Amino acid sequence: MREQQLKAFGQAVRHWRTGQRLSQEELASRCGFHRTYIGQIERGERNPSLLNILTLCRTLGVSLPNFFTHYETTIGTSV
Amino acid sequence: MREQQLKAFGQAVRHWRTGQRLSQEELASRCGFHRTYIGQIERGERNPSLLNILTLCRTLGVSLPNFFTHYETTIGTSV
Repeated sequence: MREQQLKAFGQAVRHWRTGQRLSQEELASRCGFHRTYIGQIERGERNPSLLNILTLCRTLGVSLPNFFTHYETTIGTSV
Repeated sequence: MREQQLKAFGQAVRHWRTGQRLSQEELASRCGFHRTYIGQIERGERNPSLLNILTLCRTLGVSLPNFFTHYETTIGTSV
């Protein structure tokens, strides 16, 4: 469950990132994160904090409700 | 900004918790958290992880989009 949740979150990040035509490194740079952090997030290898989630959504230009609607769709189809 | 974000998150937790007529200790127990953790969250003293946010919302019976709609309303009026 834990692993699926982290992977679904990562898929949502990838969805919104690619929609913005940003590389993982570009997104990391704009967020002020380490350049490898986005890749780890998208593979479900990280359990990000609230503040990092807020930074990600703001940088991706997506509202939190919209972001998590995509997350719930992903988790709903993968569980 | 960071402080306001954590406080707005805490207010959203309090909103949904009191709507369920749960004490902080009851909610903590149902989530498997330390009994003081919810109080710290609601005061904006914690930066919870994604997995803890998911546990909170599931236990409170609120979807993530609905939870964060309340969060964005709070942050929108407090900033």
